[in-house]
Amino acid sequence: MSTYPQTRIPVAVLGATGMVGQRFIELLQDHPWFELVALAASERHGGRPYREVTSWRLSGSEMPASAAALPVVACTPDALSGIKIAFSALPGEIAGDIELALAQAGVAVFSNAKNYRMEHDVPLLIPEVNADHISAIVQQRKERNWSGCIVTNANCCATPLVMALKPLQQAFGLRKVLVTTMQAISGAGYPGLPSYDILDNVIPYIGGEEEKLEIETLKMLGSWQEGRGFTDAPLVVSAHCNRVATREGHLECASIELERDVPPEEVIAAWENYVPESQQLKLPSAPERALVYRTEQDRPQTLRDRDAGHGMTVTLGRLRRCPILGYKFVMLGHNTIRGAAGGSVLNAELCVSKGLV
Amino acid sequence: MSTYPQTRIPVAVLGATGMVGQRFIELLQDHPWFELVALAASERHGGRPYREVTSWRLSGSEMPASAAALPVVACTPDALSGIKIAFSALPGEIAGDIELALAQAGVAVFSNAKNYRMEHDVPLLIPEVNADHISAIVQQRKERNWSGCIVTNANCCATPLVMALKPLQQAFGLRKVLVTTMQAISGAGYPGLPSYDILDNVIPYIGGEEEKLEIETLKMLGSWQEGRGFTDAPLVVSAHCNRVATREGHLECASIELERDVPPEEVIAAWENYVPESQQLKLPSAPERALVYRTEQDRPQTLRDRDAGHGMTVTLGRLRRCPILGYKFVMLGHNTIRGAAGGSVLNAELCVSKGLV
Amino acid sequence: MSTYPQTRIPVAVLGATGMVGQRFIELLQDHPWFELVALAASERHGGRPYREVTSWRLSGSEMPASAAALPVVACTPDALSGIKIAFSALPGEIAGDIELALAQAGVAVFSNAKNYRMEHDVPLLIPEVNADHISAIVQQRKERNWSGCIVTNANCCATPLVMALKPLQQAFGLRKVLVTTMQAISGAGYPGLPSYDILDNVIPYIGGEEEKLEIETLKMLGSWQEGRGFTDAPLVVSAHCNRVATREGHLECASIELERDVPPEEVIAAWENYVPESQQLKLPSAPERALVYRTEQDRPQTLRDRDAGHGMTVTLGRLRRCPILGYKFVMLGHNTIRGAAGGSVLNAELCVSKGLV
Amino acid sequence: MSTYPQTRIPVAVLGATGMVGQRFIELLQDHPWFELVALAASERHGGRPYREVTSWRLSGSEMPASAAALPVVACTPDALSGIKIAFSALPGEIAGDIELALAQAGVAVFSNAKNYRMEHDVPLLIPEVNADHISAIVQQRKERNWSGCIVTNANCCATPLVMALKPLQQAFGLRKVLVTTMQAISGAGYPGLPSYDILDNVIPYIGGEEEKLEIETLKMLGSWQEGRGFTDAPLVVSAHCNRVATREGHLECASIELERDVPPEEVIAAWENYVPESQQLKLPSAPERALVYRTEQDRPQTLRDRDAGHGMTVTLGRLRRCPILGYKFVMLGHNTIRGAAGGSVLNAELCVSKGLV
Repeated sequence: MSTYPQTRIPVAVLGATGMVGQRFIELLQDHPWFELVALAASERHGGRPYREVTSWRLSGSEMPASAAALPVVACTPDALSGIKIAFSALPGEIAGDIELALAQAGVAVFSNAKNYRMEHDVPLLIPEVNADHISAIVQQRKERNWSGCIVTNANCCATPLVMALKPLQQAFGLRKVLVTTMQAISGAGYPGLPSYDILDNVIPYIGGEEEKLEIETLKMLGSWQEGRGFTDAPLVVSAHCNRVATREGHLECASIELERDVPPEEVIAAWENYVPESQQLKLPSAPERALVYRTEQDRPQTLRDRDAGHGMTVTLGRLRRCPILGYKFVMLGHNTIRGAAGGSVLNAELCVSKGLV
Repeated sequence: MSTYPQTRIPVAVLGATGMVGQRFIELLQDHPWFELVALAASERHGGRPYREVTSWRLSGSEMPASAAALPVVACTPDALSGIKIAFSALPGEIAGDIELALAQAGVAVFSNAKNYRMEHDVPLLIPEVNADHISAIVQQRKERNWSGCIVTNANCCATPLVMALKPLQQAFGLRKVLVTTMQAISGAGYPGLPSYDILDNVIPYIGGEEEKLEIETLKMLGSWQEGRGFTDAPLVVSAHCNRVATREGHLECASIELERDVPPEEVIAAWENYVPESQQLKLPSAPERALVYRTEQDRPQTLRDRDAGHGMTVTLGRLRRCPILGYKFVMLGHNTIRGAAGGSVLNAELCVSKGLV
Repeated sequence: MSTYPQTRIPVAVLGATGMVGQRFIELLQDHPWFELVALAASERHGGRPYREVTSWRLSGSEMPASAAALPVVACTPDALSGIKIAFSALPGEIAGDIELALAQAGVAVFSNAKNYRMEHDVPLLIPEVNADHISAIVQQRKERNWSGCIVTNANCCATPLVMALKPLQQAFGLRKVLVTTMQAISGAGYPGLPSYDILDNVIPYIGGEEEKLEIETLKMLGSWQEGRGFTDAPLVVSAHCNRVATREGHLECASIELERDVPPEEVIAAWENYVPESQQLKLPSAPERALVYRTEQDRPQTLRDRDAGHGMTVTLGRLRRCPILGYKFVMLGHNTIRGAAGGSVLNAELCVSKGLV
Repeated sequence: MSTYPQTRIPVAVLGATGMVGQRFIELLQDHPWFELVALAASERHGGRPYREVTSWRLSGSEMPASAAALPVVACTPDALSGIKIAFSALPGEIAGDIELALAQAGVAVFSNAKNYRMEHDVPLLIPEVNADHISAIVQQRKERNWSGCIVTNANCCATPLVMALKPLQQAFGLRKVLVTTMQAISGAGYPGLPSYDILDNVIPYIGGEEEKLEIETLKMLGSWQEGRGFTDAPLVVSAHCNRVATREGHLECASIELERDVPPEEVIAAWENYVPESQQLKLPSAPERALVYRTEQDRPQTLRDRDAGHGMTVTLGRLRRCPILGYKFVMLGHNTIRGAAGGSVLNAELCVSKGLV
């Protein structure tokens, strides 16, 4: 059962000037359910119009005219009164207090920040993977006495990994995941990575990233039960994270061990036949297909596949035997769309359609 | 016991116009033991001077004057009479027949081509790893009735992997290796990869590369015994090979399972204390240190570490626990020097010092 | 006075497998006036479906399903019978004979090839610049006894230059143009530029490019008169052409001398107020604005502005005094859209709307 | 007449942690005349060893061991007592006061900063171009009552331009220079340009750069006369400055007008025959050839030619007729070596050899 908003819901973007903030604005432009009415960022902008304090950095698009004229206000409940939903692209250092204050003040916060991801009553949500985790919101509100809520989405390389793994976990059981990532520079935000560090280079280290990937995956693939809370999925994840000179799109090579041995074609079939319940809700930001398996031997490729499904589709390929863990394959997700802003918007749509916001 | 040449040995480069051919010429310039006296390539060059048929592509250096004036002759025993050693940068499609003809005619061929790598009596040689495999040359000559010989070096990403693994295999035993590579464009030769395919992209596929990595590693880490020939090392290798937009240097992330559990510091110590016997021979192309372990958390990096030891050192880093296989780490090797031309030259030096050439 | 087609006109793409050929297919997908019914390329494809003989290389899009199933036929009148318009992305080496044969056979050929650009009766056409040059087609048909015709579009860096210059020539007169280009790798076709040649590099030379830029500009900015033919514009152009590591978009820095001195604001106004007659025809591929002047001090930029107007808008910026020639500025055009396939399609639309096809 | 130091002169690097500071340290390692005994930077480093406060960013080299152990002291005369020469890589915002204080305290400052470049008694020095300008030091000391002095080197793209122009100015007279640059990312320092801004992009604007190029060239090509001071060369320069995705090396395309018309071969001959007086001094950092003209039609290229003469040679090519100004050509210089640190060191060597320090 799902509900759809009769009038557009007033929403805000927190951290609106940064790279993920810009993606939010791009995605919320002409959104059928949400009306972007407030942009918030550092107080020092003091209410000046967005266009004056922001250099638009997304290629292939211009700053939406509707956003350009909005004043950039502070990230406070007062400055954001009337807002029902806040999309947060805040850095971890300040996201904690701001998101808390807004949730207390009745705002539903959909956050990219890491701060609340692992809390016992906060969903780490991907609609196609663990839509039932949104029930945690009810407990969250009761226990914390919040009229709003906080819903998080995962690290940008955990998202495509979990989307790829879910159908296999469901069909065959899943024991081990060894994954190596090749992540785009946009994942480091702006100004982020100096060009002198990455042109003609690969950096085999991203602070905190491997830990997030190893932990968040377990929560997302785990279960939620009223009263008992979240239980981690019983599997082991090991990650190698690398930064490469691509603009957008995180490519990942994974070797996995399933609970039972099946022919490789069945693994591919599990992906192709996977239709998450959330798909039936026809959420505005949901791609036609959450997962696409490509049969060419050299796909997915970062450049060619990152924009699949307007950046919301995860592309898979090269499923083959791994002599050590059983199977290996390649996956790709758009890190600032599916792995960040687009993921949050989809999460909000799910919650709205379920009547939770 | 080792011998050193009293006068410089006349050598040739086969496939002299290509990228690895140019590296050979660069490395053989002013070599203390070898005198580059012949350049061979396609017959269509018809003896014209090297400078007229070749565009020098190596950055940071000019075509050596001594090579520039040499005629480019055909890859035949006749055209190469008087040559003792031939360094082969020939493509696989033609290397087989040419190298065979030269070995029969008395030339010691040191080859980058894949054709003879897995033959039962041909060494797949890295002096720091399996110097004893050169004994296969004796059998090779006897069985095949060759006055010359063929010695091969490995695929450009197998080389740093095997160099990293050998000390661990020796110290602790080795069971499993799961490796993901991020390989430079020069590995594809010239013209090789079109720029339109790789700028802002990662390609998760390199034809035949994963297979080579999985097979060659076993031979190189295996044993040679007179009469019995080569025996593969009893381990399993699984590879994911990717092409990234770097000029030179293959970076690899590996997870490994050892035969016994040791503290991570002991693994690092095994690398740091590893002194291969070949190191004592003071071969001209041997780097001061074959392996360097860096302690910074974000090293090795392709750009910063590929030229270590004039491109002959393999750089290691980030040794840490892997929750699945026990240990994980990062390694880097220069693909057209250590992984190709430099490796061949070092192999020739080893054979000369052992009196086999 | 203009006419619009009542039913969609059957069209073909010549050289359909290459980079510009793929752009044609992308742009002709769902075209309101044209129906893509034939794909032609080398005879060796022997009628196999397009999807089997082509690797789709355009990022951000998939091979259109309608094209995928089309057989790839030979570039002959026979194989293309029934075709009214052929869009040619053929290389110069073979374009001459093929385009001639088709024009004789009654096909209107809109060509990117250089072969006929400078012919005395062939328009070198940009609708916003020299729409009146299409009258040459009438003479062309009469003199050559063709039932079809050939219309060409310019070199990919001449196009944005001429579009930028036309309003200034018209308003103030134009004497000298000194232009330096920084051109994208896609301009070299596919496979085109080896990645090893351009990553971390600039190549200050593109064969034949400077000559084309210097000559074609004069023809396009010149006049057509019945009986007298084309007269070159009385100006001098000097070009420096460079290849840089960008995927799409040619950026150009120009210094120009006008016939009379005006304040810089008037130059900008001439661009902003320029409304070519062709704009009133509402051609399907015409951008809302052919020229956009940006006021930011660091625009246009290749990455951010190349897709303006779906790649059909030329973006201008940085108009300022040049102490030598009077004025200097920067311009940018998408080389495979406005500078190639999109330009040809727009040319065809113009000719159709004028009743010439 | 020249003098050479009997014992090595104690020198310091100011701004030692940045990119140009690191180049200074690299170049001063094992310098025959200078002994690097002090490293200075922001006070906050509080005397900690260089290795602890600096991440070495130059590819292909390691932090020199001698520098690694040096304490990083403040940029004050006290902290630098005993120093004879200070090489300044300070940013313009703080260079003014610091260099002044040191010059007053008796230190000879060789600076990359822009602050004093255009002062009436400060040489803007390139030994191969205007060695006689060093006489200004005498006046500088007298007028300002300094026991030390300040000598500057030019903007990183003015340097190769002026070196290319000097022989032509001397041989034929020079009236106009219209130059377009394609500058490497290292020119922006570190962290400098965000990778998200430059990967797959060209930025046609560098703040203040065009002005510097247009002004500094006149001073460097002008004359110095005792009593009268500097007189600008009577020529006009117009610049377009662009940032491209290369690591090192500024490539520039120039069109020039000479005072008299000569065949192009004579222009090339003027470069090839140019032997500046300073060349005879055999300064340690002077390249064998200050200018190299390459005859290949596609050279110089950024990647292939930037390291010529250990980064101290300026490479020229493509001299041909320009239909507007008479001649056009391409030049390339290494921006952080010849255009920055290497230029300063060479300046210091010149002053030492002339007995001025």
